[in-house]
Amino acid sequence: MSGGDSMRRWKAVCAYDGSGFSGWQSQLNGKGIQDAIEARLAEVLKRPVRIHGSGRTDAGVHAHGQVFHFDATWSHSPDKLQRALGVGLPAAIRIKKLGAARPDFHARFSATEKCYVYRIVEGDTDPFNRPFVWRIERAKRLDYAAMVEGAARLRGSHDFTAFAADNGGEILDPVRNLTGLDVVQRGRKLELKFVANGFLYKMVRSLTGALVRVGEGRLKPEALSRLMAGGVRTEAVPTAPPQGLFLRRVYY
Amino acid sequence: MSGGDSMRRWKAVCAYDGSGFSGWQSQLNGKGIQDAIEARLAEVLKRPVRIHGSGRTDAGVHAHGQVFHFDATWSHSPDKLQRALGVGLPAAIRIKKLGAARPDFHARFSATEKCYVYRIVEGDTDPFNRPFVWRIERAKRLDYAAMVEGAARLRGSHDFTAFAADNGGEILDPVRNLTGLDVVQRGRKLELKFVANGFLYKMVRSLTGALVRVGEGRLKPEALSRLMAGGVRTEAVPTAPPQGLFLRRVYY
Repeated sequence: MSGGDSMRRWKAVCAYDGSGFSGWQSQLNGKGIQDAIEARLAEVLKRPVRIHGSGRTDAGVHAHGQVFHFDATWSHSPDKLQRALGVGLPAAIRIKKLGAARPDFHARFSATEKCYVYRIVEGDTDPFNRPFVWRIERAKRLDYAAMVEGAARLRGSHDFTAFAADNGGEILDPVRNLTGLDVVQRGRKLELKFVANGFLYKMVRSLTGALVRVGEGRLKPEALSRLMAGGVRTEAVPTAPPQGLFLRRVYY
Repeated sequence: MSGGDSMRRWKAVCAYDGSGFSGWQSQLNGKGIQDAIEARLAEVLKRPVRIHGSGRTDAGVHAHGQVFHFDATWSHSPDKLQRALGVGLPAAIRIKKLGAARPDFHARFSATEKCYVYRIVEGDTDPFNRPFVWRIERAKRLDYAAMVEGAARLRGSHDFTAFAADNGGEILDPVRNLTGLDVVQRGRKLELKFVANGFLYKMVRSLTGALVRVGEGRLKPEALSRLMAGGVRTEAVPTAPPQGLFLRRVYY
């Protein structure tokens, strides 16, 4: 299969260990994940290429399925482009899929929903997992039932300003539809799964921080509704650390 | 519980991500895992301490359950020593257990059996797993049935010289009893589990290299018996790379 010699749009899915990067977005220091992919694409395609992600992830945040698009001329198969791109990337980045997209496909604007997962471990965990979880070490276990109750109060369509951070930009509409928020516990492992039509800046980490406060008994589940209605970010809502967060999937 | 003020023997179990180290053993460059633990122990106990591992692991090899012992005076609880030690270690090393041992306990000489696991993935895997597997990328899948047959020919008490490397030292007795060798396949993931009363230098990686050759169809299962009987290491036996290998457990 050949992509032809004309310029066309490509869609790619990638996974990354965000530990050593300053986040998805291109940075002046060149330590963005986007920078690494663009640098390799430029080598393969022999011209500068700008890629467009489904959205930014913060420094230290990981992805199982970040999506990006770009326009390029490529006369071989998509598989060959995927391999050429993958071979020269840092081991922390993997191109999982690459294929031709419709000309109007846009990784960010065509997305309908996104899924994020936040991983927590109560106590310590082996070094292999440490860069990928939030370790919470307390004498008392988290109250999962309270967290599940809290999660129910967060699901749905709300103004999530109280659970977001100011990123300096103007938010035209702070209402998001959190269609899914599951709290899954297995032993000392806890996984929070978020699905929404979009997320405000640091929204997943803020919701996680608030839910952990509920689990610790420092906030009542019903307090989450009051905080949400307040419409301003307060110190009652901490931001969970980045390394437990994974962008799992983008839906189109 | 107090350990008392007299010198006594301590036993510890640790896990490590060996990626950034030159192996377990103390090195002149100080990049051995042993060096990192001894440096931290010296800080905690305020005097130099020598630790004794159950055995060496090579550069890049990992552990879920390496065991070591040392002698020290400590007037607080074992838990407190474990925490003090753990806090100041690199994140790649975790002290999982620490407790008082009998005065004649020796991490190496008291060991009765050891378990190693070798992890393989056919094709690519997410960046989170890449440092912990041997990725084998071939057009054709490995022949698991042949590998299982090969494993059966390796189990038992044998002179394993043909599946070991020369470490410059004199081996008094190259016979080891490989009581367990399981080949477990789940989709594209393959796990080889080895249990023996002891292992020669690079024995697990050599056995793995030989079994993968069998899986690739480049060696017949019955050839393993012939190689073993030959009693010399030949080029027919490659050494699997270090990053797929884990010292899982030491039995006493």
